[in-house]
Amino acid sequence: MTVKLPLEPGSKIGILGGGQLGRMLALAAARLGFDVVVLEREADSPAGRTAERLIVGDYQDETALAELAALTGLVTYEFENVPAKSVEWLAAHGVEVAPDSRALGVAQDRFEEKNFLNAHGAPTVAFAEANTAEEAQRAVARIGPPALMKTRREGYDGKGQRWVEHAHDAGAAFEELGRVPVIIEAAADFVRELSIIAARDRDGAMAVYPLAENHHENGILRRSVAPARASEALNEQAERIAARILAGLSYVGVMGIELFEMADGRLLVNEFAPRVHNTGHWTQDGCEVDQFEQHIRAVAGWPLGPTRAIAQVEMLNLLGDEVEVWAKYAAEPESRIHLYGKRGAKPGRKMGHINRVKPL
Amino acid sequence: MTVKLPLEPGSKIGILGGGQLGRMLALAAARLGFDVVVLEREADSPAGRTAERLIVGDYQDETALAELAALTGLVTYEFENVPAKSVEWLAAHGVEVAPDSRALGVAQDRFEEKNFLNAHGAPTVAFAEANTAEEAQRAVARIGPPALMKTRREGYDGKGQRWVEHAHDAGAAFEELGRVPVIIEAAADFVRELSIIAARDRDGAMAVYPLAENHHENGILRRSVAPARASEALNEQAERIAARILAGLSYVGVMGIELFEMADGRLLVNEFAPRVHNTGHWTQDGCEVDQFEQHIRAVAGWPLGPTRAIAQVEMLNLLGDEVEVWAKYAAEPESRIHLYGKRGAKPGRKMGHINRVKPL
Repeated sequence: MTVKLPLEPGSKIGILGGGQLGRMLALAAARLGFDVVVLEREADSPAGRTAERLIVGDYQDETALAELAALTGLVTYEFENVPAKSVEWLAAHGVEVAPDSRALGVAQDRFEEKNFLNAHGAPTVAFAEANTAEEAQRAVARIGPPALMKTRREGYDGKGQRWVEHAHDAGAAFEELGRVPVIIEAAADFVRELSIIAARDRDGAMAVYPLAENHHENGILRRSVAPARASEALNEQAERIAARILAGLSYVGVMGIELFEMADGRLLVNEFAPRVHNTGHWTQDGCEVDQFEQHIRAVAGWPLGPTRAIAQVEMLNLLGDEVEVWAKYAAEPESRIHLYGKRGAKPGRKMGHINRVKPL
Repeated sequence: MTVKLPLEPGSKIGILGGGQLGRMLALAAARLGFDVVVLEREADSPAGRTAERLIVGDYQDETALAELAALTGLVTYEFENVPAKSVEWLAAHGVEVAPDSRALGVAQDRFEEKNFLNAHGAPTVAFAEANTAEEAQRAVARIGPPALMKTRREGYDGKGQRWVEHAHDAGAAFEELGRVPVIIEAAADFVRELSIIAARDRDGAMAVYPLAENHHENGILRRSVAPARASEALNEQAERIAARILAGLSYVGVMGIELFEMADGRLLVNEFAPRVHNTGHWTQDGCEVDQFEQHIRAVAGWPLGPTRAIAQVEMLNLLGDEVEVWAKYAAEPESRIHLYGKRGAKPGRKMGHINRVKPL
């Protein structure tokens, strides 16, 4: 199905992926009058339960993709590990997919991603690729330990990575990660972890939200505070980086960009995700148009909405059985509750989040 | 299915009715982690497309009601003309229905409603019932023309009512309305139409939103401005009225109460609706917890959320083909867009609304 943009209310939007990000995208799309079709492997999923239509299937299943393509001419996705081939298949069948396969391709390979960033004036830590244990050892020796070894592909929330304390440990780490191509990154001696949520529309107009300050535990985001305390200069530096990345990719949609703030005031890019981002959940209660509506606006060919903060927000992720204390948060006047309807609160699983709101 | 309150996230909530109010309730429920089952006559409806499950059936169809009762122990509704019998059937089968059948019964009969209001210290215009053309003529003569004749049951958005300019026209109006029991109301010489959205939880705690000032055309709401300019005394008067009505009904949920502001500063109640209300749509972008989440919180046995205004809002209904100018509103930074996904923009049909937001 080919699509006419801007997308008329009443049209269908396809979402690849049925998790919480898909769910919140689906709710935002519904508010703007769209109907949502979700393609997801699981028959019972957070986004599937809020969509008009659910297609149960693998992202590589051409029957499922064909069903999606027959229903809608516009597709987006909720996570960056959608196979690029699936996106290409849809595009070849006349479906507009945003963000496009280039953004996806760059984001799916951490080595490509860092090369892209440096080539576009977005600084990162020093890094090197390695395809063998020997290359890994040489790379760690050159970059200087401690260094972070990550698989080039897959992995999230701290999975698929190892700290290497000495060059002679590199071989063992390479084995543990499964003898797959890896990237070795210098340790970033940062003072804070920040992130910026940025959007670019189909005409190239961009909008960025204020910086968020993020706190991770065991590789998983626990807490974001936004707008982060930051000088005008720091905000401008982040915006400049975001603009370079989005323009460099001719990006359409919302992107989450993780940053390290160094002691000398420089910002380094840790990574970006070509999708709505956990560190942008604060926008649901801190901005007039949140990142989910912003993403739908951008991919649908609508103009972007305002991004200024209207409140100070502390976002808390509810991991695993922490969701069981929902009643405590429900009784707090300052807490806005966002739960994902996931069955089974496995340890570390993102079950929901709370936005604690204060006047600016 | 019996229900344990407060309702745990992950549980199902049933909604009778598949229109825009059902849709916005469904989206609010999903945000809190609930799954929604909609019972609606039409196979394709605004709320049906955002629910986890849709049961297509008449509200009086016991098979459909039984299916609903098998899926969920908690049911609410989006409009006040759900047959009281259906609610009683569900209650008899162990389903908790809120607001309950008493609120529904009182609201469904305009004569009962006004009697209830006056009995609970909520003033109204003078009124009388009539079951024959002769009674209607005598009532108009007693109350004094011009008077408003309304069917006691059904009718909304100005349907089912006639102005009677002279007592001797009452018989003709009675015929035109279909020779059904009517209520004759004195004309209210009001200076403004206001409304208050009020909520009461299962413990009897109440919360009210600031007053909205409403503008109707041809009996259909066009525009609300909120918070309305109003003295402290006027706000308190409205809150007192709301408290009397909700407490008088042992009400659970959100209620919309329409008020006439008279030249002498008194407020008269025009009518109330035992549900979320069009004049409360401003709360979506003017408050931290909107009327839809508030209603879900109340019926689910959760504590109520905050109701203070965080912005000044002008709510504009998009009627019929006015929805076609969505692109104009999408380009306005101050306009938040809410579209219902209705097929077919019949004249006067509520297709969506715009909340134009300004700082307080």
